[in-house]
Amino acid sequence: MQIAVDAMGGDHAPGEIVRGAVAAAREKIAGIILVGDKRRLEPELKPLHPPASLEIVHTEQVVEMDEQPALALRRKREASIIVATRLVKEGRAAAVVSAGSTGAQMAAALLILGRSGKIQRPAIATIIPTLKGPKLLLDAGANVDCRPEHLYEFALMGNLYAARVMGIREPRVGLLNIGTEACKGNEQTLGAYNLLKGSPLNFTGNIEGRDILAGDTDVIVCDGFVGNVLLKFGEGMAQALFTMIGREIKNSFRARLGAALVLPTLRGLKKQVDYTEYGGAPLLGVQGISIICHGSSNARAIKNAIKVAARCVEQGLVTGLGQLPGVNGEGEVVKCQPH
Amino acid sequence: MQIAVDAMGGDHAPGEIVRGAVAAAREKIAGIILVGDKRRLEPELKPLHPPASLEIVHTEQVVEMDEQPALALRRKREASIIVATRLVKEGRAAAVVSAGSTGAQMAAALLILGRSGKIQRPAIATIIPTLKGPKLLLDAGANVDCRPEHLYEFALMGNLYAARVMGIREPRVGLLNIGTEACKGNEQTLGAYNLLKGSPLNFTGNIEGRDILAGDTDVIVCDGFVGNVLLKFGEGMAQALFTMIGREIKNSFRARLGAALVLPTLRGLKKQVDYTEYGGAPLLGVQGISIICHGSSNARAIKNAIKVAARCVEQGLVTGLGQLPGVNGEGEVVKCQPH
Repeated sequence: MQIAVDAMGGDHAPGEIVRGAVAAAREKIAGIILVGDKRRLEPELKPLHPPASLEIVHTEQVVEMDEQPALALRRKREASIIVATRLVKEGRAAAVVSAGSTGAQMAAALLILGRSGKIQRPAIATIIPTLKGPKLLLDAGANVDCRPEHLYEFALMGNLYAARVMGIREPRVGLLNIGTEACKGNEQTLGAYNLLKGSPLNFTGNIEGRDILAGDTDVIVCDGFVGNVLLKFGEGMAQALFTMIGREIKNSFRARLGAALVLPTLRGLKKQVDYTEYGGAPLLGVQGISIICHGSSNARAIKNAIKVAARCVEQGLVTGLGQLPGVNGEGEVVKCQPH
Repeated sequence: MQIAVDAMGGDHAPGEIVRGAVAAAREKIAGIILVGDKRRLEPELKPLHPPASLEIVHTEQVVEMDEQPALALRRKREASIIVATRLVKEGRAAAVVSAGSTGAQMAAALLILGRSGKIQRPAIATIIPTLKGPKLLLDAGANVDCRPEHLYEFALMGNLYAARVMGIREPRVGLLNIGTEACKGNEQTLGAYNLLKGSPLNFTGNIEGRDILAGDTDVIVCDGFVGNVLLKFGEGMAQALFTMIGREIKNSFRARLGAALVLPTLRGLKKQVDYTEYGGAPLLGVQGISIICHGSSNARAIKNAIKVAARCVEQGLVTGLGQLPGVNGEGEVVKCQPH
């Protein structure tokens, strides 16, 4: 299996991306095709002594983070994210991984790979660490204006991903809402609740914001606006709490003494709640595997994202997504079991 | 100044409510009218030796937390929250404070007090603790389906509250969104951005979820669905992080040793991020002061909520809200300065 890695995307590209890709190749997670500017990649690669299997596909164009995605893709037809996604379309790679512009990666996937089966709205599925292990939340930002049917699609896709890729048996699917009662919500969630209630999914009803991290729901469904705001709030809150803890500890001599002993433990925790450690977020609903990484991804995050991509391929995710019933379709929802 | 306190509402009613009200009366924050069942209040009051000024208005009916608010108000015309709100309407109290059903409190306020001036959609404004002190977020859940004009109203009301009651000079008003650029957002926020950009408010543009707790925005505007989900997520996350920290510390001998020294400090921090400590959240946009408290409010939260209510009265909040220009009005936005 070959996986295309956009070597030019991300805050720490190409250095960290190259290091992550080499680590993945060395651990034989997959064969790697690095897509990017040869003259910048080779000096990074040389000291790492990469396995011979690692390949470079050369291109000089890059979509910058501040470019308008659709426009950039039209102007830069040889941008690394386009070339990498094209490798998937052509069957030369089984998946693409990038830490570059999310908008450009999504646009490239939609344009080059196309939508999967009956799915109208591809969605970004993000892993969130909870008290009971990693769970899935989608949409994390691909669709900011959603109708109930779209949330229903997200539930179908999330269910498939949780079952096949995360290995969760009969995933519990919950709808993010302002109350647990069926009568609570806005027009969108009230409509989605009805669709989900009638589905063969293991729908456990509405879930409130405060219950997400308890970890009793495997797949949390919401629109991309809410998902994006929420995930970023969580990120900011973890940061703010650690800042506050640091401040408080500095103010107390006794605490300063204790902190020296506790800090290594807290650092481990910080790593645990830092979602970049969980690799990338799959874009579900396109005809191919496209894994979106956090812009600030380090080598470890990239390696983990390549691992996620490989697992998606092995578990036949794209075929599974292609077989999902449409929102108004007649088909039964495929209950997926881990293989 | 007299403040009506719904003594029967909240998880810890009437005990904690009574204790909070007595503390407020004793500190001369305001004169207190306790509304509720005399036979249950008097035994609570007796051992506290309340000031003579403290009055009871007797009523036996209570809206329970699981009742449908509109229905409950129709059936229980003498429910404590109705009687307390009626005291405001009749001019016998300057404000009402309750930790009971938020839906019932809102419905009572709309029904009995009515909307303020040109405001179409009253909103719940919540204080959130940030790295730079308490800031305001609205709407926290009163309106789940909002148009751009409604967000604009929230901004006007939040600005007035921040200036008059929180004493912030020229509050920085931000729109909660998925990106900072003007082109980012859903239909609702794109529309609101345009309205806000053209307003005389100190509009600082879009704010992402991750920047809320940094504290550089004084008034954060969002719809009630997003606000509710976000605030509850924050509550759950604080809880989850403390649980995780506890777990990690237990796993390490060295950390356990240090923890004994650090824990009192962390407990102080927990209190600092627990928003029940900030008293109540005002329902802005009705013709009277109605302060909504967290269902789990303790005596301290109730006392603080009464303090907030008193400050709202002193600062002429209701008059100020009544003078705000309508969304399609011709009037200038009143730039409010702290008195």
